[in-house]
Amino acid sequence: MPLAPLLNLPGVTAEPEAATHGYVFNHTMIRVKDIAASLDFYTRVLGFTPVHRQEFAEAAFTIYYLVLRADREAIPEDDAARLQWVLGQPGVLELTYNHGTEQQPDFHYHSGNSEPRGFGHLCVTVPDVHAACARFEALGVPFQKRLADGRMKHIAFIKDPDGYWIEILQPAPLAV
Amino acid sequence: MPLAPLLNLPGVTAEPEAATHGYVFNHTMIRVKDIAASLDFYTRVLGFTPVHRQEFAEAAFTIYYLVLRADREAIPEDDAARLQWVLGQPGVLELTYNHGTEQQPDFHYHSGNSEPRGFGHLCVTVPDVHAACARFEALGVPFQKRLADGRMKHIAFIKDPDGYWIEILQPAPLAV
Repeated sequence: MPLAPLLNLPGVTAEPEAATHGYVFNHTMIRVKDIAASLDFYTRVLGFTPVHRQEFAEAAFTIYYLVLRADREAIPEDDAARLQWVLGQPGVLELTYNHGTEQQPDFHYHSGNSEPRGFGHLCVTVPDVHAACARFEALGVPFQKRLADGRMKHIAFIKDPDGYWIEILQPAPLAV
Repeated sequence: MPLAPLLNLPGVTAEPEAATHGYVFNHTMIRVKDIAASLDFYTRVLGFTPVHRQEFAEAAFTIYYLVLRADREAIPEDDAARLQWVLGQPGVLELTYNHGTEQQPDFHYHSGNSEPRGFGHLCVTVPDVHAACARFEALGVPFQKRLADGRMKHIAFIKDPDGYWIEILQPAPLAV
Protein backbone atom coordinates (compact mmCIF):
# COMPACT_ATOMS: atom_id res chain seq x y z
CA MET A 1 0.00 0.00 0.00
CA PRO A 2 1.40 3.44 -0.91
CA LEU A 3 2.33 5.79 1.88
CA ALA A 4 -0.52 8.29 1.34
CA PRO A 5 -3.38 5.83 2.04
CA LEU A 6 -1.40 4.42 5.00
CA LEU A 7 -1.46 7.92 6.47
CA ASN A 8 -5.23 8.02 5.96
CA LEU A 9 -6.09 4.74 7.63
CA PRO A 10 -8.77 5.03 10.34
CA GLY A 11 -7.14 6.23 13.54
CA VAL A 12 -3.92 7.50 11.98
CA THR A 13 -2.76 11.01 12.81
CA ALA A 14 -1.22 11.95 9.49
CA GLU A 15 1.08 14.62 10.90
CA PRO A 16 2.60 13.78 14.29
CA GLU A 17 2.62 16.58 16.83
CA ALA A 18 5.88 18.48 17.10
CA ALA A 19 5.86 17.49 20.79
CA THR A 20 6.73 13.92 19.72
CA HIS A 21 9.89 14.95 17.86
CA GLY A 22 12.80 13.40 19.65
CA TYR A 23 10.74 10.49 20.98
CA VAL A 24 12.68 7.24 20.37
CA PHE A 25 11.27 3.70 20.42
CA ASN A 26 14.19 2.67 22.57
CA HIS A 27 13.70 -0.83 23.87
CA THR A 28 11.65 -3.95 24.38
CA MET A 29 11.81 -5.75 27.73
CA ILE A 30 11.41 -9.48 28.22
CA ARG A 31 11.93 -11.46 31.42
CA VAL A 32 14.41 -14.35 31.24
CA LYS A 33 14.79 -17.33 33.57
CA ASP A 34 18.54 -18.00 33.25
CA ILE A 35 20.52 -14.85 32.50
CA ALA A 36 23.73 -16.69 31.52
CA ALA A 37 21.82 -18.81 29.01
CA SER A 38 20.14 -15.71 27.57
CA LEU A 39 23.36 -13.70 27.39
CA ASP A 40 24.97 -16.66 25.61
CA PHE A 41 22.12 -16.88 23.11
CA TYR A 42 21.80 -13.17 22.36
CA THR A 43 25.56 -12.51 22.13
CA ARG A 44 26.83 -15.73 20.51
CA VAL A 45 23.91 -16.64 18.23
CA LEU A 46 22.59 -13.17 17.35
CA GLY A 47 25.60 -10.89 17.89
CA PHE A 48 24.22 -8.57 20.59
CA THR A 49 26.55 -6.69 22.96
CA PRO A 50 25.61 -5.98 26.60
CA VAL A 51 26.16 -2.28 27.30
CA HIS A 52 24.47 -1.72 30.66
CA ARG A 53 23.69 -3.79 33.76
CA GLN A 54 21.83 -2.55 36.80
CA GLU A 55 21.02 -4.59 39.87
CA PHE A 56 18.07 -3.83 42.13
CA ALA A 57 19.20 -5.76 45.19
CA GLU A 58 16.17 -5.12 47.41
CA ALA A 59 13.72 -6.17 44.71
CA ALA A 60 16.07 -9.05 43.73
CA PHE A 61 16.29 -8.42 40.02
CA THR A 62 18.89 -7.22 37.53
CA ILE A 63 18.36 -5.59 34.15
CA TYR A 64 20.63 -5.77 31.11
CA TYR A 65 20.55 -3.58 28.00
CA LEU A 66 21.89 -5.15 24.81
CA VAL A 67 22.50 -3.59 21.40
CA LEU A 68 22.99 -5.32 18.06
CA ARG A 69 25.66 -3.50 16.09
CA ALA A 70 29.03 -4.40 14.73
CA ASP A 71 30.61 -0.98 15.28
CA ARG A 72 31.63 -1.41 18.90
CA GLU A 73 33.81 1.69 18.71
CA ALA A 74 30.57 3.71 18.73
CA ILE A 75 29.82 2.53 22.27
CA PRO A 76 31.02 5.07 24.87
CA GLU A 77 33.46 3.76 27.47
CA ASP A 78 32.35 6.03 30.29
CA ASP A 79 29.48 4.48 32.27
CA ALA A 80 27.24 7.55 32.51
CA ALA A 81 27.88 8.51 28.89
CA ARG A 82 27.16 4.92 27.77
CA LEU A 83 23.83 4.80 29.63
CA GLN A 84 22.76 8.13 28.16
CA TRP A 85 23.87 6.92 24.71
CA VAL A 86 21.99 3.62 24.85
CA LEU A 87 18.79 5.34 26.00
CA GLY A 88 18.90 7.42 22.82
CA GLN A 89 19.21 4.43 20.49
CA PRO A 90 16.37 2.57 18.77
CA GLY A 91 16.36 -1.22 18.80
CA VAL A 92 17.69 -1.97 22.29
CA LEU A 93 16.82 -5.25 24.01
CA GLU A 94 16.27 -5.24 27.78
CA LEU A 95 16.52 -8.54 29.63
CA THR A 96 15.13 -8.66 33.17
CA TYR A 97 16.45 -11.42 35.38
CA ASN A 98 14.62 -12.15 38.64
CA HIS A 99 17.27 -13.63 40.90
CA GLY A 100 17.18 -17.37 41.43
CA THR A 101 14.61 -18.35 38.83
CA GLU A 102 17.15 -20.54 37.02
CA GLN A 103 17.30 -22.75 40.13
CA GLN A 104 13.57 -23.57 40.01
CA PRO A 105 13.11 -26.58 37.71
CA ASP A 106 9.44 -25.91 36.98
CA PHE A 107 9.79 -22.16 36.51
CA HIS A 108 9.16 -20.82 33.04
CA TYR A 109 8.06 -17.62 31.36
CA HIS A 110 5.20 -17.31 28.88
CA SER A 111 6.03 -16.60 25.23
CA GLY A 112 2.73 -14.87 24.48
CA ASN A 113 1.94 -17.26 21.63
CA SER A 114 -0.42 -19.60 23.47
CA GLU A 115 -3.33 -18.51 25.64
CA PRO A 116 -3.36 -15.93 27.04
CA ARG A 117 -1.86 -14.35 23.93
CA GLY A 118 -0.43 -10.86 23.55
CA PHE A 119 3.22 -10.22 22.73
CA GLY A 120 4.19 -12.18 19.62
CA HIS A 121 7.86 -12.05 18.73
CA LEU A 122 11.07 -10.16 18.21
CA CYS A 123 12.49 -10.00 14.69
CA VAL A 124 16.12 -9.96 13.62
CA THR A 125 16.65 -9.24 9.94
CA VAL A 126 19.72 -10.73 8.30
CA PRO A 127 21.59 -10.14 5.03
CA ASP A 128 21.00 -13.73 3.84
CA VAL A 129 18.17 -15.70 5.43
CA HIS A 130 19.32 -19.06 4.02
CA ALA A 131 22.87 -18.58 5.33
CA ALA A 132 21.56 -17.42 8.71
CA CYS A 133 19.22 -20.39 9.09
CA ALA A 134 21.98 -22.82 8.09
CA ARG A 135 24.15 -21.23 10.77
CA PHE A 136 21.40 -21.53 13.40
CA GLU A 137 20.97 -25.22 12.48
CA ALA A 138 24.71 -25.78 12.85
CA LEU A 139 24.61 -24.07 16.26
CA GLY A 140 21.75 -26.29 17.40
CA VAL A 141 19.28 -23.44 17.82
CA PRO A 142 15.67 -24.65 18.12
CA PHE A 143 13.28 -23.57 15.39
CA GLN A 144 9.60 -22.74 15.75
CA LYS A 145 9.30 -22.65 11.95
CA ARG A 146 11.92 -23.53 9.40
CA LEU A 147 11.99 -21.78 6.01
CA ALA A 148 10.57 -24.93 4.40
CA ASP A 149 7.64 -25.16 6.84
CA GLY A 150 4.25 -23.72 5.99
CA ARG A 151 3.45 -21.34 3.19
CA MET A 152 5.80 -18.45 3.94
CA LYS A 153 9.09 -19.85 2.64
CA HIS A 154 11.04 -16.62 3.19
CA ILE A 155 10.51 -16.44 6.96
CA ALA A 156 11.80 -18.58 9.81
CA PHE A 157 11.23 -18.41 13.55
CA ILE A 158 13.86 -19.53 16.05
CA LYS A 159 13.37 -19.75 19.81
CA ASP A 160 15.45 -18.19 22.55
CA PRO A 161 16.23 -20.10 25.79
CA ASP A 162 12.87 -19.03 27.30
CA GLY A 163 10.92 -20.05 24.23
CA TYR A 164 10.32 -16.50 22.97
CA TRP A 165 9.95 -16.51 19.20
CA ILE A 166 12.45 -14.61 17.04
CA GLU A 167 11.49 -14.05 13.43
CA ILE A 168 14.33 -14.25 10.91
CA LEU A 169 14.02 -12.76 7.45
CA GLN A 170 16.01 -10.73 4.98
CA PRO A 171 15.06 -7.25 3.76
CA ALA A 172 15.89 -7.89 0.10
CA PRO A 173 13.53 -10.15 -1.88
CA LEU A 174 14.74 -13.73 -2.19
CA ALA A 175 16.12 -14.75 -5.55
CA VAL A 176 13.67 -17.21 -7.13
CA MET B 1 29.50 -1.28 35.23
CA PRO B 2 32.35 -0.57 32.76
CA LEU B 3 32.19 -2.17 29.34
CA ALA B 4 35.05 -4.64 29.86
CA PRO B 5 33.42 -6.57 32.75
CA LEU B 6 30.10 -6.51 30.90
CA LEU B 7 31.82 -8.36 28.07
CA ASN B 8 33.10 -10.91 30.59
CA LEU B 9 29.79 -11.72 32.28
CA PRO B 10 28.97 -15.44 32.38
CA GLY B 11 27.53 -16.47 29.03
CA VAL B 12 28.70 -13.43 27.07
CA THR B 13 30.56 -13.98 23.81
CA ALA B 14 32.95 -11.04 23.98
CA GLU B 15 33.55 -10.87 20.23
CA PRO B 16 30.47 -11.56 18.09
CA GLU B 17 31.02 -13.82 15.09
CA ALA B 18 31.52 -12.02 11.79
CA ALA B 19 28.51 -14.01 10.55
CA THR B 20 26.29 -11.78 12.70
CA HIS B 21 27.47 -8.55 11.09
CA GLY B 22 24.53 -7.03 9.29
CA TYR B 23 21.99 -8.61 11.67
CA VAL B 24 19.49 -5.94 12.74
CA PHE B 25 17.12 -6.10 15.72
CA ASN B 26 14.33 -4.93 13.45
CA HIS B 27 11.01 -5.17 15.23
CA THR B 28 8.82 -6.19 18.11
CA MET B 29 5.37 -7.62 17.40
CA ILE B 30 2.34 -7.24 19.65
CA ARG B 31 -1.23 -8.26 18.92
CA VAL B 32 -3.87 -5.53 19.23
CA LYS B 33 -7.65 -5.87 19.61
CA ASP B 34 -8.82 -2.67 17.88
CA ILE B 35 -6.44 -1.56 15.14
CA ALA B 36 -7.99 1.92 14.75
CA ALA B 37 -7.57 2.56 18.48
CA SER B 38 -3.96 1.35 18.38
CA LEU B 39 -3.09 3.36 15.26
CA ASP B 40 -4.59 6.42 16.97
CA PHE B 41 -2.55 5.84 20.11
CA TYR B 42 0.78 5.08 18.45
CA THR B 43 0.54 7.87 15.85
CA ARG B 44 -1.18 10.65 17.83
CA VAL B 45 0.22 10.07 21.32
CA LEU B 46 3.67 8.69 20.49
CA GLY B 47 4.36 10.03 16.99
CA PHE B 48 4.76 6.76 15.08
CA THR B 49 4.17 6.59 11.31
CA PRO B 50 2.67 3.50 9.60
CA VAL B 51 4.91 2.52 6.68
CA HIS B 52 3.64 -0.93 5.69
CA ARG B 53 0.37 -2.85 5.86
CA GLN B 54 -0.14 -6.42 4.71
CA GLU B 55 -3.40 -8.34 4.89
CA PHE B 56 -3.53 -12.11 5.11
CA ALA B 57 -7.13 -12.61 4.04
CA GLU B 58 -7.31 -16.41 4.40
CA ALA B 59 -5.86 -16.33 7.91
CA ALA B 60 -7.97 -13.23 8.70
CA PHE B 61 -5.27 -10.97 10.06
CA THR B 62 -3.43 -7.84 8.99
CA ILE B 63 0.01 -6.62 10.03
CA TYR B 64 1.22 -3.03 10.29
CA TYR B 65 4.81 -1.78 10.58
CA LEU B 66 5.28 1.56 12.31
CA VAL B 67 8.40 3.67 12.71
CA LEU B 68 9.05 6.52 15.14
CA ARG B 69 11.00 9.24 13.42
CA ALA B 70 10.39 12.85 12.56
CA ASP B 71 12.24 12.80 9.23
CA ARG B 72 9.45 11.48 7.03
CA GLU B 73 11.39 12.44 3.92
CA ALA B 74 13.67 9.45 4.67
CA ILE B 75 10.77 7.04 4.06
CA PRO B 76 10.80 5.70 0.47
CA GLU B 77 7.64 6.32 -1.54
CA ASP B 78 7.88 3.18 -3.67
CA ASP B 79 6.15 0.24 -1.97
CA ALA B 80 8.84 -2.39 -2.57
CA ALA B 81 11.64 0.02 -1.70
CA ARG B 82 9.80 1.10 1.47
CA LEU B 83 9.34 -2.50 2.66
CA GLN B 84 13.01 -3.29 2.06
CA TRP B 85 13.96 -0.06 3.84
CA VAL B 86 11.83 -0.70 6.92
CA LEU B 87 13.17 -4.24 7.28
CA GLY B 88 16.67 -2.80 7.54
CA GLN B 89 15.78 -0.35 10.35
CA PRO B 90 16.09 -0.97 14.08
CA GLY B 91 13.22 -0.01 16.37
CA VAL B 92 10.19 -0.90 14.25
CA LEU B 93 6.87 -1.74 15.90
CA GLU B 94 4.69 -4.42 14.33
CA LEU B 95 1.01 -4.49 15.23
CA THR B 96 -0.94 -7.64 14.38
CA TYR B 97 -4.71 -7.27 14.12
CA ASN B 98 -6.83 -10.41 14.02
CA HIS B 99 -9.96 -9.40 12.15
CA GLY B 100 -13.08 -8.81 14.20
CA THR B 101 -11.62 -8.92 17.69
CA GLU B 102 -12.75 -5.34 18.35
CA GLN B 103 -16.35 -6.53 18.03
CA GLN B 104 -16.03 -9.04 20.87
CA PRO B 105 -16.79 -7.21 24.15
CA ASP B 106 -14.96 -9.71 26.36
CA PHE B 107 -11.94 -10.15 24.12
CA HIS B 108 -8.63 -8.87 25.45
CA TYR B 109 -4.94 -9.52 25.06
CA HIS B 110 -2.51 -10.25 27.88
CA SER B 111 0.07 -7.61 28.79
CA GLY B 112 2.61 -10.11 30.14
CA ASN B 113 2.75 -8.35 33.52
CA SER B 114 0.41 -10.62 35.47
CA GLU B 115 0.58 -14.40 35.51
CA PRO B 116 1.65 -15.94 33.25
CA ARG B 117 4.41 -13.34 32.97
CA GLY B 118 6.94 -12.98 30.15
CA PHE B 119 7.06 -9.91 27.93
CA GLY B 120 7.30 -6.79 30.08
CA HIS B 121 7.08 -3.51 28.19
CA LEU B 122 8.07 -1.27 25.34
CA CYS B 123 10.05 1.88 26.15
CA VAL B 124 9.89 5.25 24.44
CA THR B 125 12.56 7.67 25.53
CA VAL B 126 11.75 11.37 25.37
CA PRO B 127 13.78 14.58 25.49
CA ASP B 128 11.95 15.81 28.64
CA VAL B 129 10.14 13.24 30.77
CA HIS B 130 8.21 15.83 32.79
CA ALA B 131 6.95 17.59 29.66
CA ALA B 132 6.05 14.26 28.04
CA CYS B 133 4.11 13.06 31.10
CA ALA B 134 2.26 16.37 31.37
CA ARG B 135 1.31 15.96 27.71
CA PHE B 136 0.09 12.39 28.28
CA GLU B 137 -2.02 13.59 31.23
CA ALA B 138 -3.53 16.33 29.07
CA LEU B 139 -4.33 13.74 26.38
CA GLY B 140 -6.04 11.49 28.93
CA VAL B 141 -3.57 8.61 28.50
CA PRO B 142 -3.84 6.04 31.32
CA PHE B 143 -0.79 5.61 33.51
CA GLN B 144 0.48 2.40 35.08
CA LYS B 145 2.94 4.45 37.13
CA ARG B 146 3.25 8.21 37.34
CA LEU B 147 6.63 9.84 37.95
CA ALA B 148 5.58 10.58 41.54
CA ASP B 149 4.59 6.95 42.24
CA GLY B 150 7.00 4.54 43.90
CA ARG B 151 10.70 5.01 44.38
CA MET B 152 11.87 5.56 40.80
CA LYS B 153 10.86 9.17 40.28
CA HIS B 154 12.50 9.48 36.86
CA ILE B 155 10.43 6.75 35.16
CA ALA B 156 6.76 6.56 34.22
CA PHE B 157 4.71 3.83 32.58
CA ILE B 158 1.71 4.59 30.38
CA LYS B 159 -0.65 2.01 28.91
CA ASP B 160 -1.64 1.50 25.30
CA PRO B 161 -5.27 0.64 24.33
CA ASP B 162 -4.63 -3.08 25.00
CA GLY B 163 -3.03 -2.43 28.36
CA TYR B 164 0.56 -3.05 27.22
CA TRP B 165 2.96 -1.05 29.36
CA ILE B 166 5.13 1.64 27.77
CA GLU B 167 8.00 2.94 29.85
CA ILE B 168 8.73 6.67 29.50
CA LEU B 169 12.07 8.12 30.54
CA GLN B 170 14.66 10.58 29.33
CA PRO B 171 18.25 9.68 28.42
CA ALA B 172 19.83 12.68 30.14
CA PRO B 173 19.90 12.71 33.95
CA LEU B 174 17.11 14.73 35.53
CA ALA B 175 18.08 18.08 36.99
CA VAL B 176 17.79 17.85 40.78
